[in-house]
Amino acid sequence: MRFTENFERAKKEALMSLEIALRKGEVDEDIIPLLKKINSIENYFTTSSCSGRISVMEMPHFGDKVNAKWLGKWHREVSLYEVLEAIKKHRSGQLWFLVRSPILHVGAKTLEDAVKLVNLAVSCGFKYSNIKSISNKKLIVEIRSTERMDVLLGENGEIFVGEEYLNKIVEIANDQMRRFKEKLKRLESKINALNR
Amino acid sequence: MRFTENFERAKKEALMSLEIALRKGEVDEDIIPLLKKINSIENYFTTSSCSGRISVMEMPHFGDKVNAKWLGKWHREVSLYEVLEAIKKHRSGQLWFLVRSPILHVGAKTLEDAVKLVNLAVSCGFKYSNIKSISNKKLIVEIRSTERMDVLLGENGEIFVGEEYLNKIVEIANDQMRRFKEKLKRLESKINALNR
Repeated sequence: MRFTENFERAKKEALMSLEIALRKGEVDEDIIPLLKKINSIENYFTTSSCSGRISVMEMPHFGDKVNAKWLGKWHREVSLYEVLEAIKKHRSGQLWFLVRSPILHVGAKTLEDAVKLVNLAVSCGFKYSNIKSISNKKLIVEIRSTERMDVLLGENGEIFVGEEYLNKIVEIANDQMRRFKEKLKRLESKINALNR
Repeated sequence: MRFTENFERAKKEALMSLEIALRKGEVDEDIIPLLKKINSIENYFTTSSCSGRISVMEMPHFGDKVNAKWLGKWHREVSLYEVLEAIKKHRSGQLWFLVRSPILHVGAKTLEDAVKLVNLAVSCGFKYSNIKSISNKKLIVEIRSTERMDVLLGENGEIFVGEEYLNKIVEIANDQMRRFKEKLKRLESKINALNR
């Protein structure tokens, strides 16, 4: 398979897209240093990323991402108060409290480069890391960890859970947030190991 | 990378392990036909699998799998009554209601074989499918989909949620169960496309 034939061009395009996203403020701030470090290594480039988040989301039904609406979204620990304020905005559909782990997609030049990155990411705690796709156009590594939470909060304006319960959920979410932020720091400190 | 050098031996060992697991009744029944079909194809073998499940689990804290205890576990749709019976067994630690998608690990002979399987699985709805590991000893594809739920139900004997809420959760879980069972059927019906 000749997925490396377009590597130089793909990397140039990805860096340009990132530059534009950075100017628009569309990149999660706390992940920018890691993205820059990865892109400074010859055989890799980042294509998309999320630093991990806690959110309150309204959607017609579970899994309907297209019509989903964020009522609150945080890339840091949250307070019960902030979550309650987001919940107040709920009007219709299902209301969910969600935690998502960081996710990074990274182009690699060779299969060896891809495997090295997967192994490094796993060793830093990103256990769900894998090679997401291989074709003659691209070779993409996905860096992801296991933290996640999906809690139904309400539906069509009715809230099913009390403050005490919400407080426990928020505590666990913040614990997950602290854990994956540490993993990001670990990866950032070790990423130079990929330099040949 | 020469991950295919041990393929024949690895496949033989995997088939023996599966045979033993089958005799012990340790393999989820509804996934057995799919496993057999995969193993009948020359360049693939299954190493582990779960057909997807709904469960009620007790653990000292979230993520502590080692000390987790299943109070109820189903590879099919459940009734509210069954879930309530499982909850009654709760004594200590955190009590969670969980949904997990099917997961299959499949050894492939060549990178082309691995990519073909990932693409087939994704096309059948297993969007999280990927190449999990590549080394000189193995090349493993992971087949997985997006369905998942994690709901905190209680802690140290106290239950935080009411029956009405539980009923909604069970409905959503059963809906997820139906969806991933269909994906398994789709994959089973299309798996022969991998035959060269």
